[in-house]
Amino acid sequence: MTTTGTPAPAPFTTDDYAARMRRAVADAVGAGLDGLLVTPGPDLVWLTGYRPTAITERLTVLVLTPDREPTLLVPTLERPDAEAAVGAPALAIQDWADGEDPFARAGALVRADATMGIADSAWALHLLGLQEALPGSTYRSLTRALPMLRAVKDADELARLSAAGAAADAVYEQVLGLRFAGRRETEVAADIARLLRETGHEQVDFTVVGSGPNGANPHHEAGDRTIEPGDAVVLDFGGLMHGYGSDTSRTVSVGEPSARVREVHEVVRLAQQAGVDAVRPGVACQEVDRAARAVITEAGLGDRFIHRTGHGIGTTTHEPPYMIEGEEQPMLPGMCFSVEPGVYLPGDFGVRIEDIVTVTDEAGRRLNDSDHHLRVVE
Amino acid sequence: MTTTGTPAPAPFTTDDYAARMRRAVADAVGAGLDGLLVTPGPDLVWLTGYRPTAITERLTVLVLTPDREPTLLVPTLERPDAEAAVGAPALAIQDWADGEDPFARAGALVRADATMGIADSAWALHLLGLQEALPGSTYRSLTRALPMLRAVKDADELARLSAAGAAADAVYEQVLGLRFAGRRETEVAADIARLLRETGHEQVDFTVVGSGPNGANPHHEAGDRTIEPGDAVVLDFGGLMHGYGSDTSRTVSVGEPSARVREVHEVVRLAQQAGVDAVRPGVACQEVDRAARAVITEAGLGDRFIHRTGHGIGTTTHEPPYMIEGEEQPMLPGMCFSVEPGVYLPGDFGVRIEDIVTVTDEAGRRLNDSDHHLRVVE
Repeated sequence: MTTTGTPAPAPFTTDDYAARMRRAVADAVGAGLDGLLVTPGPDLVWLTGYRPTAITERLTVLVLTPDREPTLLVPTLERPDAEAAVGAPALAIQDWADGEDPFARAGALVRADATMGIADSAWALHLLGLQEALPGSTYRSLTRALPMLRAVKDADELARLSAAGAAADAVYEQVLGLRFAGRRETEVAADIARLLRETGHEQVDFTVVGSGPNGANPHHEAGDRTIEPGDAVVLDFGGLMHGYGSDTSRTVSVGEPSARVREVHEVVRLAQQAGVDAVRPGVACQEVDRAARAVITEAGLGDRFIHRTGHGIGTTTHEPPYMIEGEEQPMLPGMCFSVEPGVYLPGDFGVRIEDIVTVTDEAGRRLNDSDHHLRVVE
Repeated sequence: MTTTGTPAPAPFTTDDYAARMRRAVADAVGAGLDGLLVTPGPDLVWLTGYRPTAITERLTVLVLTPDREPTLLVPTLERPDAEAAVGAPALAIQDWADGEDPFARAGALVRADATMGIADSAWALHLLGLQEALPGSTYRSLTRALPMLRAVKDADELARLSAAGAAADAVYEQVLGLRFAGRRETEVAADIARLLRETGHEQVDFTVVGSGPNGANPHHEAGDRTIEPGDAVVLDFGGLMHGYGSDTSRTVSVGEPSARVREVHEVVRLAQQAGVDAVRPGVACQEVDRAARAVITEAGLGDRFIHRTGHGIGTTTHEPPYMIEGEEQPMLPGMCFSVEPGVYLPGDFGVRIEDIVTVTDEAGRRLNDSDHHLRVVE
């Protein structure tokens, strides 16, 4: 079953990847860097389409500098896989054999005194190897140096995120028909994972089911607790569809909610709406956090909203920009991020409501938009 | 179905983790380090039992130094998860809140001029943050500084690896009854994954099905190719069971094998036996590689054996020690690693045979040991 009714988006082409690599080099130079070093992970997927079957101690690195065509250094064994990537025709591929020193090989592609951006999740083993091979070189985290490299989505990426959001909405509609009372959180979580796959997700990243007091831990996933009538249940689920993420949260009541659950839920609903209303191009990301937080603080619950209001989404379900106090990055059309305020009452219950929002030329537009009111389940 | 017939091993205790942390500190000091920094991953699981639900840009780090009790710094949101780890009672847990500088917090736990080992897979983002917070500090990759930290398995670990190996043998017995001809590699791979789970694996790491020419790429996983009568098919599968790894390879023939397949398979079988026969405490790891390679070289196929002979296994399916030319580390009783020579004939076929072997007081003992001869499947 695919509920979106739309055909799968056209695959990205070699030209798409070539354009992204050109832009990355230009952005790097603009940020005062001599180039970028990109190891396996979401940046490499976004730049080349290449996703090695495993991320290991064997160095794979894309070297992007203004004076050389994009060059991917891979272990000899993995060369056939790299050559099969859609972006490969836009790359020079080099390989290093077992027993060779990969850092000397990578170092030969970089100026000895270069200042390079390096992928955040590059292994320390590899960074230390590069630092040793090129003692005069300097490194900056790619996200710190170019936080917005992947943040503004183009039309093809937005189509994927919209499809993922629509699928998440369809999942929530079906979740409302599930049995909650008397079942373990893990059983409901398994149902949600199945629904995500049935609606077209190729990867499930998280299926949070936080019932009663478990909902008061914002990092709770799903446990052995049996859900009881009267519980508030925080649901937070998402994954990747056509390579791009979904991420939505709703809080439901098992049977009739208490007055306290109703009241807190309404505060969070209004806070989430205020956060979405604060989305506007040119405005700093922190204003989204401030707008949502103000509503919760006004209700006397400010100290129970213990996390940032949102995070970017794209080829991962958690990336810049962050909607957090101190983030002065202006929102730009095409950025996509979550708006997800919550209130957590230890020992009692929690409420979180989350949509993915994209910045349009004028304001914010939700990419998922299922019913925000407190719904009752069985 | 669990085929091993043995009860699940007893869970590791807080005392087990405390003992591992004490040994890690002693080993670090012995290696001239002032301590260890361990971020989420297999080292952290092995030392504390703590496995965060996701590995993100938010710093989580275990600081092990001789002058302080083991201290785990975690994001505030993840503190309840960390506190639930079996090793937690042996730890001081500190947390840092969204908006705080985690590197200043971690830096306060380390001497300003310290030389620290850091987990290989620690994020570059985090290493750069630490280097900036403590400009006088120096870092060495944990695996380079203490390559054998997790390499010698104790009796409880060996019991887990034995159970995983027995399960892998049981899977292979059932694989021999699968239909190969006319099915896609991915379909057979899905069957193998199912069998791994049915025999008790909680995690499937790889299910390689390399038929005909695909078998000649040692890193091929499983693709759309339809398997044909006459194909040699490389199978290589494994995952985690009770937290410890299995990893075995066999090469089968779909219908009657050609003389060439028979001949190459026999060379690899003898090479693998020679590698296992070379296992002996006190002997350098590279001797296992040399022994296996000598048989293949003698057969005139030396240039078609294009990878190292083996790798360690434990809480991961790929870790030190490595059976590779240049590795002079002596084998020690309790080490567990693969012995997996292969021959790869581009455009034609490949053969690989692999067992996990543990070093006893006298020699090597296979932890998986299904039929090594060329078996015919349908």
